[in-house]
Amino acid sequence: MKEIDKLSVNAIRATCIDVVNKAKSGHPGMALGSAPILYTLFTKHLVANPKEPEWFNRDRFVLSAGHASSLLYTLLHVSGYEVSLDDLKSFRQLGSLTPGHPEYKHTKGVDATSGPLGQGIAQAVGMAMAERAVAHQYPQGKELCSHYTYALCGDGCLQEGLSQEAISLAGHHKLNKLILFYDSNAVTLDGGLDLSFSENVKARFKASEWNVLEVLDGNDVDAIDEAISKAKTSKSKPTLIIVHTIIGYGSEKQGTSKVHGSPLGEEDGAKAKKFYGYDYPEFTIPEEVYSHFKNSFAKRGEEAYKNYLKVVEEYKIKHAGAYKKFEKALSGDVSSYFKKEPKFDPSNSDSTRVSSGKALNELYNKVPFLMGGSADVAGSVMTKITDGINFTYKTPKGRNINWGIREFEMAAAQNGMLLHGGLKTYVGAFLVFVDYMKAAVRMAALSKLPGIYLLSHDSLAVGEDGPTHQPIEQLAMLRSIPNVNVIRPSDARETYAAWQIALESKETPTCLILSRQNLPLLASKYKEVQKGAYIISKEAKRLDATIVATGSEVSLAIEAQKELAIRGVDVRVVSMPSTYLFDKQTKEYRDEVIGTTKDKVFAVEMLSSFGWYKYADHVMGIDTFGTSAPAKDAIKAFDFTSEHLVKFVLANL
Amino acid sequence: MKEIDKLSVNAIRATCIDVVNKAKSGHPGMALGSAPILYTLFTKHLVANPKEPEWFNRDRFVLSAGHASSLLYTLLHVSGYEVSLDDLKSFRQLGSLTPGHPEYKHTKGVDATSGPLGQGIAQAVGMAMAERAVAHQYPQGKELCSHYTYALCGDGCLQEGLSQEAISLAGHHKLNKLILFYDSNAVTLDGGLDLSFSENVKARFKASEWNVLEVLDGNDVDAIDEAISKAKTSKSKPTLIIVHTIIGYGSEKQGTSKVHGSPLGEEDGAKAKKFYGYDYPEFTIPEEVYSHFKNSFAKRGEEAYKNYLKVVEEYKIKHAGAYKKFEKALSGDVSSYFKKEPKFDPSNSDSTRVSSGKALNELYNKVPFLMGGSADVAGSVMTKITDGINFTYKTPKGRNINWGIREFEMAAAQNGMLLHGGLKTYVGAFLVFVDYMKAAVRMAALSKLPGIYLLSHDSLAVGEDGPTHQPIEQLAMLRSIPNVNVIRPSDARETYAAWQIALESKETPTCLILSRQNLPLLASKYKEVQKGAYIISKEAKRLDATIVATGSEVSLAIEAQKELAIRGVDVRVVSMPSTYLFDKQTKEYRDEVIGTTKDKVFAVEMLSSFGWYKYADHVMGIDTFGTSAPAKDAIKAFDFTSEHLVKFVLANL
Repeated sequence: MKEIDKLSVNAIRATCIDVVNKAKSGHPGMALGSAPILYTLFTKHLVANPKEPEWFNRDRFVLSAGHASSLLYTLLHVSGYEVSLDDLKSFRQLGSLTPGHPEYKHTKGVDATSGPLGQGIAQAVGMAMAERAVAHQYPQGKELCSHYTYALCGDGCLQEGLSQEAISLAGHHKLNKLILFYDSNAVTLDGGLDLSFSENVKARFKASEWNVLEVLDGNDVDAIDEAISKAKTSKSKPTLIIVHTIIGYGSEKQGTSKVHGSPLGEEDGAKAKKFYGYDYPEFTIPEEVYSHFKNSFAKRGEEAYKNYLKVVEEYKIKHAGAYKKFEKALSGDVSSYFKKEPKFDPSNSDSTRVSSGKALNELYNKVPFLMGGSADVAGSVMTKITDGINFTYKTPKGRNINWGIREFEMAAAQNGMLLHGGLKTYVGAFLVFVDYMKAAVRMAALSKLPGIYLLSHDSLAVGEDGPTHQPIEQLAMLRSIPNVNVIRPSDARETYAAWQIALESKETPTCLILSRQNLPLLASKYKEVQKGAYIISKEAKRLDATIVATGSEVSLAIEAQKELAIRGVDVRVVSMPSTYLFDKQTKEYRDEVIGTTKDKVFAVEMLSSFGWYKYADHVMGIDTFGTSAPAKDAIKAFDFTSEHLVKFVLANL
Repeated sequence: MKEIDKLSVNAIRATCIDVVNKAKSGHPGMALGSAPILYTLFTKHLVANPKEPEWFNRDRFVLSAGHASSLLYTLLHVSGYEVSLDDLKSFRQLGSLTPGHPEYKHTKGVDATSGPLGQGIAQAVGMAMAERAVAHQYPQGKELCSHYTYALCGDGCLQEGLSQEAISLAGHHKLNKLILFYDSNAVTLDGGLDLSFSENVKARFKASEWNVLEVLDGNDVDAIDEAISKAKTSKSKPTLIIVHTIIGYGSEKQGTSKVHGSPLGEEDGAKAKKFYGYDYPEFTIPEEVYSHFKNSFAKRGEEAYKNYLKVVEEYKIKHAGAYKKFEKALSGDVSSYFKKEPKFDPSNSDSTRVSSGKALNELYNKVPFLMGGSADVAGSVMTKITDGINFTYKTPKGRNINWGIREFEMAAAQNGMLLHGGLKTYVGAFLVFVDYMKAAVRMAALSKLPGIYLLSHDSLAVGEDGPTHQPIEQLAMLRSIPNVNVIRPSDARETYAAWQIALESKETPTCLILSRQNLPLLASKYKEVQKGAYIISKEAKRLDATIVATGSEVSLAIEAQKELAIRGVDVRVVSMPSTYLFDKQTKEYRDEVIGTTKDKVFAVEMLSSFGWYKYADHVMGIDTFGTSAPAKDAIKAFDFTSEHLVKFVLANL
């Protein structure tokens, strides 16, 4: 091991100690243990340009063990990213560039938000899939996109079931450019790993067709270097590099859970630095370390970047059309695909899942960088693409993904694909099983990733499969997540409009909530869907009451409106496909649509009433679990009929 | 293979065909493939008494692949359970005993609700843990509790990450009495398994310290029999029996995904029966099959049951005290542990997580069948038990569980433990990570299991860990699930009261939402917590407004009340620890507490406002993600101060 390696690793460790000590908060344990791993990666392998942190063809790095954020920030600092010593000194403080866990779009050089365990690995798998996909969607596409994806995890990530879905998927796709470091320190927050874990991790990865390399001494930079070099040569397998480290290396409490989540403090920090032989004042990194990073990491990255620009210049000339397409894919601009409002046969009575499938097939053929699939329910959620090619190891050009029965990984990997860039994506599942992916939907929302979720079988109209398969509270769950646009269209037209909104979204994930059962085409308005709610059927003369409905219940409301008219009650029907979009409208518009008081507003949705009282004093919903029966019978059993709605309105006026 | 085996398997298969055909809905594929597995299990091994389906010491069986329900119902029918031919004929119809997926407490003989993939395995692991725990909590406890736990899964369950958490945990605990059948048919809903899966399942299980046995011909009853016999002798490992089957065996579409989820129909059904050589009219099972089940399964079960009663009679005499304890554990009655209302030092300012930890420690010592733990956050969620013994292979008597970083399995296994019976249980995690367990909480609610979830770090007062760790929408998510009691106590007293409610619950899961930060003891009322909400600080004279608050915001509301009084606004403060319990009160009580109109009601909770408009027209909440900063700064940045609350009230009155 060279002197400069030693000095650099020590400087990084010492800085991590200072960063966490100053903040009086943080997780020094893994940061100290993992320092040589990331040091080696950054100085000897990672290709990225600190001056162009968003350069598309950079290697990606995901700190799946997000609690080691002090290490990542320290590395970004010495690597020449826009993270100053002052930023390091304001670690975890309000508004700083160095929050508790890495945040995408907040700190330059951070490729993914992480912290919730397992999701970093899961996202990295998505990134590696995206790298391969983009590389194969263009002639000689490797000139545009060809890089590695690295991730670092600890035991926490590997205990999470999500990691298995990710590992399994990565092995299945033979993602040879994915390299995962496992910081194996045998300690978790509650104590020794052996309290809860006895797996043979090596064997587990091998069972999923991974390469596994092992570095016995986590301080051996040369051995780590060698392992990475070897991993990079893998032709058809992702690689796990197990690095045996010591948590809190150098601290008095090293090797124990006590150093996991608390600052070392002055005294122990000083002892650790002495142990390293690092004799510099607080927050001091010697000039040779900076210049070493400049001459290794930054130089490599800047040269690669320059070279890429040159290659791309040539590519532009050789493949003008392809390059235009590529540029468009990078921009994510899809407006040109939505020039005309689609027309529908008045007799259209497609279920909204079928309408969504039709819209998707049209868009899939128009938008060459649109890619996605479902968790083994393509035929039910209608994500099947006519003549679509599957994305596989042998056909990497394919854009149809068979995610397998891995909902959580599907949603988390979609986040990774969007973090990577160059693609628009969608995933599909039954609405009720969005429960399995909740944490990844939240991550999309938090990371401002415009993922599209096609969620069908959207009420107890699911029928015979019964309460385990009938969503009740899932819409409330999704609507309650900040920055998630939930759209439940009422007919084919609203479904197409929803697709446009979803695809045009830049920073907001969109859930399309789709019916299993057929629905008539209504007097719906394509453009009004963007406002979240609009009057779909006006009152005749005076406004006795307003019925607000979504999805399959809009036609129910319109039926009830007719029956109520016969009884002399004049009702307005509002279609509210998206509360999210409606909330964004001006107060004037909102008042115009649903009025200023709620006492004459009735909300109708064949799901939980939870959340609807914001708009209506009277809610017809279902606040118990469903039942197994043919849809018609189930709906009747829960009184979701226009007759009941009429009674409900009359009783509450 | 004996003639009677052949005839019986054919009868079962033919009946499954009829059941699904008649319903015109269901999943015949796996039912036909797995029939010999369950036939062998039931007739040759499973110990259960159809006349006493809830017998505590029966073997447990979980159909993790819940879509094969037609097979389970058919077996329950021929085994002599209360499932008649008529019940089979009303498969998946409204109100029938044979719903689309098996439902616990609905159909006798069904040991677990299943359908959501992976959760059956996860529950079975919990059952096997419970079996071992109960057996070791009493002197010679194996006389009271000693049985096997079986489960059947397909590829779907194994692709779900949850299964890995379960497998890993089972291997860690060396659950030798857990036997899992893997119906390996290489087909999923979307097509061949190779579309999405290339794992070596055998190696994966071995990596987690499982025994793995393999039956190459899924029709070979003798080989299945032998494998089960071998599995039962395992001393320190759970066993996976991989059985290679053919999906939709006998159908024209056998071996393809087309037979996965649709009825065979008349024609193909008839062909399959012909292929089996089964020549009986629809829904006809020969008498010899019934008597075969009677003489094998039922006889074995009834004898074992009689023998158990005898043993227990003797046990009662030998171990009178222990038996009393056991009886109490079975009844789940904990009322005797709550005789006196606890008293608190007025200066108490414990965080509610600390109060919960104290309550738990007291209860743990009082209630000998209380058992639980956390997902590697014992020291943070305060589930550490002073002098508590860990539940391990070597110390099976221990009642403290180290779940590892496996939130989903923790919650799903808790369901299994409660399904098993004989225990009260709790699990612990950070509130934000309840996202990972959402589907298991739903399953608890649907299955009417009174699981206890200790969820701490309950707002952005989490502080430095930042938005990935700060719950916003999680309370809305939990409250929206039917049959879930979410209690967010405001001080030590309410926390103790919440524990009593949680422990006394029989059919409703309870989430205790706990603060990280200290909270003062208020003029809270122990017994009123049961009402969900009560007036904690009355208005002085006239009622200008009502502030409804929960948890840490109750003290904030009381501060604001004082400030408002100075400004001449007379305010009432209501503590509403549980909207669930409040909704169950009489209208009179509800009106008395928060009034009949909402326009002067203000709700305050440092989480999403979603759901609060049911009680208040004015909600002070947080509808964006949080921020990384010391708690005080984060709270201030989001204006969660009494000053701001005062302004908010004044502005909206």
